[in-house]
Amino acid sequence: MAKELKELTSRSENYSQWYNDLVIKADLAESSAVRGCMVIKPYGYAIWEKIQAELDRMFKETGHVNAYFPLFIPKSFLSKEAEHVEGFAKECAVVTHHRLMADPNGKGLIVDPDAKLEEELIVRPTSETIIWNTYRGWIQSYRDLPILINQWANVVRWEMRTRLFLRTAEFLWQEGHTAHATEAEAVEEARKMLEVYADFSERFMAVPVIKGIKSANERFAGALETFCIEALMQDGKALQAGTSHFLGQNFAKAFDVTFMDKSNKLDHVWATSWGVSTRLMGALIMTHSDDNGLVLPPNLAPFQVVIVPIYKNEEQLAAISEKVADITAKLKALNISVKFDNNDNKKPGWKFAEYELKGVPVRLAMGARDLENGTVEVARRDTLTKETIAIDGIELYIDKLLKTIQANIFQKAVDYRASVTRDVNSYDEFKVEIEKGGFLMCHWDGTPETEERIKEETKATIRCIPLEGDTTPGTCMVTGKPSAQRVIFARSY
Amino acid sequence: MAKELKELTSRSENYSQWYNDLVIKADLAESSAVRGCMVIKPYGYAIWEKIQAELDRMFKETGHVNAYFPLFIPKSFLSKEAEHVEGFAKECAVVTHHRLMADPNGKGLIVDPDAKLEEELIVRPTSETIIWNTYRGWIQSYRDLPILINQWANVVRWEMRTRLFLRTAEFLWQEGHTAHATEAEAVEEARKMLEVYADFSERFMAVPVIKGIKSANERFAGALETFCIEALMQDGKALQAGTSHFLGQNFAKAFDVTFMDKSNKLDHVWATSWGVSTRLMGALIMTHSDDNGLVLPPNLAPFQVVIVPIYKNEEQLAAISEKVADITAKLKALNISVKFDNNDNKKPGWKFAEYELKGVPVRLAMGARDLENGTVEVARRDTLTKETIAIDGIELYIDKLLKTIQANIFQKAVDYRASVTRDVNSYDEFKVEIEKGGFLMCHWDGTPETEERIKEETKATIRCIPLEGDTTPGTCMVTGKPSAQRVIFARSY
Repeated sequence: MAKELKELTSRSENYSQWYNDLVIKADLAESSAVRGCMVIKPYGYAIWEKIQAELDRMFKETGHVNAYFPLFIPKSFLSKEAEHVEGFAKECAVVTHHRLMADPNGKGLIVDPDAKLEEELIVRPTSETIIWNTYRGWIQSYRDLPILINQWANVVRWEMRTRLFLRTAEFLWQEGHTAHATEAEAVEEARKMLEVYADFSERFMAVPVIKGIKSANERFAGALETFCIEALMQDGKALQAGTSHFLGQNFAKAFDVTFMDKSNKLDHVWATSWGVSTRLMGALIMTHSDDNGLVLPPNLAPFQVVIVPIYKNEEQLAAISEKVADITAKLKALNISVKFDNNDNKKPGWKFAEYELKGVPVRLAMGARDLENGTVEVARRDTLTKETIAIDGIELYIDKLLKTIQANIFQKAVDYRASVTRDVNSYDEFKVEIEKGGFLMCHWDGTPETEERIKEETKATIRCIPLEGDTTPGTCMVTGKPSAQRVIFARSY
Repeated sequence: MAKELKELTSRSENYSQWYNDLVIKADLAESSAVRGCMVIKPYGYAIWEKIQAELDRMFKETGHVNAYFPLFIPKSFLSKEAEHVEGFAKECAVVTHHRLMADPNGKGLIVDPDAKLEEELIVRPTSETIIWNTYRGWIQSYRDLPILINQWANVVRWEMRTRLFLRTAEFLWQEGHTAHATEAEAVEEARKMLEVYADFSERFMAVPVIKGIKSANERFAGALETFCIEALMQDGKALQAGTSHFLGQNFAKAFDVTFMDKSNKLDHVWATSWGVSTRLMGALIMTHSDDNGLVLPPNLAPFQVVIVPIYKNEEQLAAISEKVADITAKLKALNISVKFDNNDNKKPGWKFAEYELKGVPVRLAMGARDLENGTVEVARRDTLTKETIAIDGIELYIDKLLKTIQANIFQKAVDYRASVTRDVNSYDEFKVEIEKGGFLMCHWDGTPETEERIKEETKATIRCIPLEGDTTPGTCMVTGKPSAQRVIFARSY
């Protein structure tokens, strides 16, 4: 697909522009003709498919099954849970009619006024309401529980300011919706899925995250408790990478979902929901990439190795191709994905730049001299370093190298986060430090009012109350009232 | 999930009711609170996931990649291709507003009149228009071609009469959209994907299909040629299982998508699109199932083997479980999926009926006597026969048996189709024969008028002009005019 290889804006020059340039130039996604909706291009979608496959495997390993619920939610359903509707009513795509007709006064189409729906339908912004309305028919007794269901779907939230992957009107996600006989089991489920998300994020995306609990202000609309994983981008801004909600009996009560427990007593069912979305793509891109382009973790790269032949004539290409076929077979036997780019229309230098931009973890280049010497040039995307390595045993070398790269970019992100995470003890200091970005560990009095004031005055929010780490009590940096432990403040995406 | 095992309506009593009962009782899907939209339950979705995985593999093997395009289509896009809009305008879900608000005159929510969209958005009924509008930006030269993209997505067509899987307002599908430099290449692509669909249908679903071309009346709105695969259900009605369209330059012209060809001449791009949907689930169910429930082809069954222990006490269960663990490991090593149902709340007889209803291809039952004798009872779902087999080497026996079942249900469907496919030579005979169902091979004069008349008078349509088989010319059974070859008439879903 036609695209010119131009320089990216550098991160230091304009981080936001760098991100946007990168998403476009690396062929990950682009804006569409529909306001706020994106087109996910094949290279970007291939990364999303790898994310999906791995998460799906992890969900199934933890006992979940997939199902599919309707795209549309009757307007009246949305209203049934008071906080939920408050959170979503203002950003809904509303279907009001079911037919178009030719405009009797001219050319083109108009909405047929006779095809007005009796009740408007909302394009799902999340599916708690339609799912809990369905669960009512599935649950009578404790024997029907737990229900452990996940759905892969598209959802729509009519956001005013959108950015590719990070905030779009339509996005792709998975949403787990589980039903339990006891409160303890539901809380355990919500925390278990938080662990799954954290594990996935760190081992596959190589994105370190802090596990925590949201403050009341930042909680999901309708949840009693929202658990989250928070990542830190290279510009010092936080990004919420996944959430897992303990919903209590709120939705069971709103949709009248009861069950007979073991002691023959009727009770409302306990619920969780949890989700991650194509937003993860934004976290992946912003955590690792540099001014040369994308840097992909080997565990999620559409292809992990690209091989570029350097040749002067057909004969040389044939000799190189033979050697490459041998290497490729050995790599594939180790489950390493490889692309051999023997496209004759592009020069090696163009290809080098292209695969650097696209973040392919390892690039091999092989020329006539390499053939003679039994060597190949190995370039690492993460460090931009090159080495000449013997072909003999190259597959084992690369297998190890991919693991090294995966570990290295994770450690780099951990180190960066450590370098911009610090304790802040006074509000004056806070106002200075927040401008520099990063995670600020501060004492807070636990009230929504104080959090709201800090947000208004500094644009920083509580990213989470960490589940692990320092739990020494102290006094709130703003009000001086008692604080149970430091919480994480940051500006965020 | 709570559900009583009641008798199914028999096929002979009421085929339509049998189908509906079966979909509900086998836990495949159910109607939702949203008119015409279904909930696909975990067992049904597990079959769909297997269909998806296999098709996705076949698409990728034939050079396609996945991407994702917006759910919404601006109203004006739909109007750009004249035939296309004609085909879809009357069954559109139309988004007109982007916000709800509290009703100032009472309780509940109303659509916020201030949040009216400037241009209405249509929930995609199919994505040609939004995709070709996007391709315009991707294609400049022949070097950018071909584009071979597939999308897995949900689509909405506001059907008035709906039936689970067969015809629902929202359904899941895949839609391939390819762009080519030449007409020949596009036609080749459309036919190649028809072959992929036919191959998948026969080898995985065990559903025999006839490959053919649609008559002009039945062509996709906007296509120059629609290729299709047609299956025959047990009630003698046809079901269109997949279509592949050669779109010519229609969409390229409507969206102004041109490219510079090798001779530096500007031309419009050639297109195809092709899709199969959750409708395949309906074909799968109706082709093989019987009055006892679902019959699943081993190649798509969520689990291929179920093992039911028959025991009087914990000690017996422990001994059986140990043996079962051994068998399960051996089956899994052969890539055979197994479920061991040791649920203590249900009796073996209940389990037998349940797995029969759910169409599990092979059921093993093991009791104390089997343990003593080193045997296991093997029951086939397709023939409902049972045998006692030695445990030693059972995995190889079952591996072979699964292949036998797959072949057997396919052959059974082929034989059934053959038994109700016949040549019909006069319109009087046709009117009698069409009442009996099946495929009627008839001469037709090739005109839409004759086809329309036959449809009005008999409710039968031309399913396809077969690509293979008898091509002897003759005379139209209705008008006596010349006919190039026999075509297939049937009543259809």
